[in-house]
Amino acid sequence: MVQATLDVPDLHIPRVVIIGGGFAGLELVRSLKSQEVQVVLLDRNNYHTFQPLLYQVATAGLEPDAIAFPIRKLFHNYENFYFRYSVVQEIDTQQKEVVTNLGKLKYDYLVVASGSRTNFFGNENIRYHSMPLKTVVQSLQLRSLLLQNFEKALQTKDLTKREAYMNFVIVGGGPTGVELAGALSELKNYVLPVDYPELDVRKMQVHLVDAGPRVLAALSEESSASAERYLKKLGVHLHFNTLVKDYDGTTAITIKDGEEGQLLGRNLIWSAGVEGNAPKGFDASKITERGNRILVNEFNQVEGVQNVFAVGDVACMKLEDFPNGHPMVAPVAIQQATLLAKNLKCLINGKSLKPFKYQNKGSMATVGKNKAVVEIGKTRFKGVFAWFIWMFVHILSLIGLRNKAIVFINWFWNYLNYDRSNRLIISRFSKEERKEKRDKGKAGVVI
Amino acid sequence: MVQATLDVPDLHIPRVVIIGGGFAGLELVRSLKSQEVQVVLLDRNNYHTFQPLLYQVATAGLEPDAIAFPIRKLFHNYENFYFRYSVVQEIDTQQKEVVTNLGKLKYDYLVVASGSRTNFFGNENIRYHSMPLKTVVQSLQLRSLLLQNFEKALQTKDLTKREAYMNFVIVGGGPTGVELAGALSELKNYVLPVDYPELDVRKMQVHLVDAGPRVLAALSEESSASAERYLKKLGVHLHFNTLVKDYDGTTAITIKDGEEGQLLGRNLIWSAGVEGNAPKGFDASKITERGNRILVNEFNQVEGVQNVFAVGDVACMKLEDFPNGHPMVAPVAIQQATLLAKNLKCLINGKSLKPFKYQNKGSMATVGKNKAVVEIGKTRFKGVFAWFIWMFVHILSLIGLRNKAIVFINWFWNYLNYDRSNRLIISRFSKEERKEKRDKGKAGVVI
Repeated sequence: MVQATLDVPDLHIPRVVIIGGGFAGLELVRSLKSQEVQVVLLDRNNYHTFQPLLYQVATAGLEPDAIAFPIRKLFHNYENFYFRYSVVQEIDTQQKEVVTNLGKLKYDYLVVASGSRTNFFGNENIRYHSMPLKTVVQSLQLRSLLLQNFEKALQTKDLTKREAYMNFVIVGGGPTGVELAGALSELKNYVLPVDYPELDVRKMQVHLVDAGPRVLAALSEESSASAERYLKKLGVHLHFNTLVKDYDGTTAITIKDGEEGQLLGRNLIWSAGVEGNAPKGFDASKITERGNRILVNEFNQVEGVQNVFAVGDVACMKLEDFPNGHPMVAPVAIQQATLLAKNLKCLINGKSLKPFKYQNKGSMATVGKNKAVVEIGKTRFKGVFAWFIWMFVHILSLIGLRNKAIVFINWFWNYLNYDRSNRLIISRFSKEERKEKRDKGKAGVVI
Repeated sequence: MVQATLDVPDLHIPRVVIIGGGFAGLELVRSLKSQEVQVVLLDRNNYHTFQPLLYQVATAGLEPDAIAFPIRKLFHNYENFYFRYSVVQEIDTQQKEVVTNLGKLKYDYLVVASGSRTNFFGNENIRYHSMPLKTVVQSLQLRSLLLQNFEKALQTKDLTKREAYMNFVIVGGGPTGVELAGALSELKNYVLPVDYPELDVRKMQVHLVDAGPRVLAALSEESSASAERYLKKLGVHLHFNTLVKDYDGTTAITIKDGEEGQLLGRNLIWSAGVEGNAPKGFDASKITERGNRILVNEFNQVEGVQNVFAVGDVACMKLEDFPNGHPMVAPVAIQQATLLAKNLKCLINGKSLKPFKYQNKGSMATVGKNKAVVEIGKTRFKGVFAWFIWMFVHILSLIGLRNKAIVFINWFWNYLNYDRSNRLIISRFSKEERKEKRDKGKAGVVI
């Protein structure tokens, strides 16, 4: 029962509507605290997702509550703050309204911080059969799928089928792909053999496929090399300069140097690309052709559209040193949000705006226990020390003392016991159901 | 793709098939360790559920991983043990096989430990509109429903509708009903007002309805009285000698002394009854008319059916002091399982069997922080001390050091902060979908 208007009290002060409770959205709310504006945050979930650790939920290392944080709880005692649990359908820049499943909402200033979504590059087979990993629900689905497939492996005498159930093909050698490949290999080496003594888990294969010549392209070649060494040590099969062009649910068709190949595996994780999650309502000229991101100027303004801004993954700010926009990572989102909060204040007070300048704080990825690579500015670390830095930084970045404690205990426990304790198939997962619901546009519901 | 036979290796020793990984099933597996038998455990979930704390998952106090435990992990290094993640459809006592969704399985000895399920006494309206609380999935659904309804309350200007969204009607004054009523009242008093400053949460009502004259009928009148005092202190509305005869999703129709009444609330939790979860395949004479439990003799044997046993909630052993069978609680299940393991050994070695004698260890329930009642034998405790006993006993009963630690941290955190941290709507919950799936017989999938 959609209502005419989304009900938010009118405070007779400028209303800033923010779409999306990701890193950018939260930072913006924080930076706008005690400003003379009404802040309305819209999100399809009632929690913030700490995406960097989703792969640990998928591999039974953590439960969602450790990496997700209720948005309302975050902004207790924030004056002039309103959260609405709603799905944005469209933006009407003429009427200055956001259209949601709960009705329309007027804005004075609109900030689109709707992040990014998985990009299947139009391949429906892959979209249907593969598993993306961008949301809490997807991470739980992946966990269920991999455990279900091991249970199924027990029930077939056909050895090829059995291998297919046990094999993983990860497409995309970015941090998600690398960390997932590492975590799955640790499951293979330490956890699954004890859980499934009846299966020859040594036969389980983890393939990591990348279109480029190396993993972690964002890092230095040196760090890539270390990461690759770690991955090989864990038994991951690496495939470079290789494209996955099709997948039928059992066999992935690959292309390398024009030659077709095949990879057998019922578990294919697609981390090969993301695109901006730009809402409807902008005319084509405002959206990048490749990547579906919203074009903004150095003030994160959508030019030619009054009082509309975009920040984070969904924004594409083409600057000399970033001709295709900034990398779609949390630090960019947070820095843009911090600046935009200041600029909004300037705008309201008729002052001039400051342009955005990205401070690259570095980058890191972990492959497994005692195995990580970290680059901070020019300094590079690897191995145990880097791994501790990685854990330290991630625990610090988590919101809330409780979540920090829960994650710490889980990691400490898993470290001592080579264990992943959350091996629960909470809901049987079926691709048919997922498709059905996704076709109904209810992706958020799928679990 | 159902197979002809469920694939389990033939060890040429007696095969004991156990249906259900509840308290009885697990205890049986443990007690049969290092016996000369093959143990095959079947369960529709790959984890054991610690049901006494489900209500805390439902009220955002705990995540499932804290109260559920992977069955395979439990029985690492058990020889001759096999787990099959499968749904039992029927038992064929003639052929001595269990029919499952994965195929048929031969048994030499069969132990039915399939527990109990919610009993709606044939009322389809209540079955469709109310929320039961017997499984992990149901507890997550209840959590989602209550949070969704609060979000919806924000979006209606109709004050009656708004109240309906905020109101809770709990039917059944047993431990589950009492503990749930207490937990919901604490949410009302400490958590929801900060989360929803826009709502007048004081208007939220928690009703506890029972057909009898008091709560916790299993305990002494003195303990009931204390529990009632605690509940009233927390603001729970108590309705005794009252039946809920119908519910349309918004208004519950009650009957007291022949008079009809109404209770407004979009959240109705049905904890008014359970019935045995007896599988198909027994002839009517073996099943109790009321309660759907399997009739067994004092050795937990199903008389007239060779080598078939039932233990725990699903078993009804009519003895002089228990003319309607034992109470459907964990201690009975565990004690019966321990004895049956011994008796199976005797049976195999042609020795005579020992009859079952229930040792009542007492009973307890908590209403909220510092509020609990405990009865151990003749001794009764209440208040803070009872509450600590309750927490101590429950943490000790949890399986695994990690789960104990996780629960302890969560409780400690919630105690200090009057908080419930897991307020995540992981998947939007719809009754239509639940019905759809339940009608397809896929209750386990519903989330």
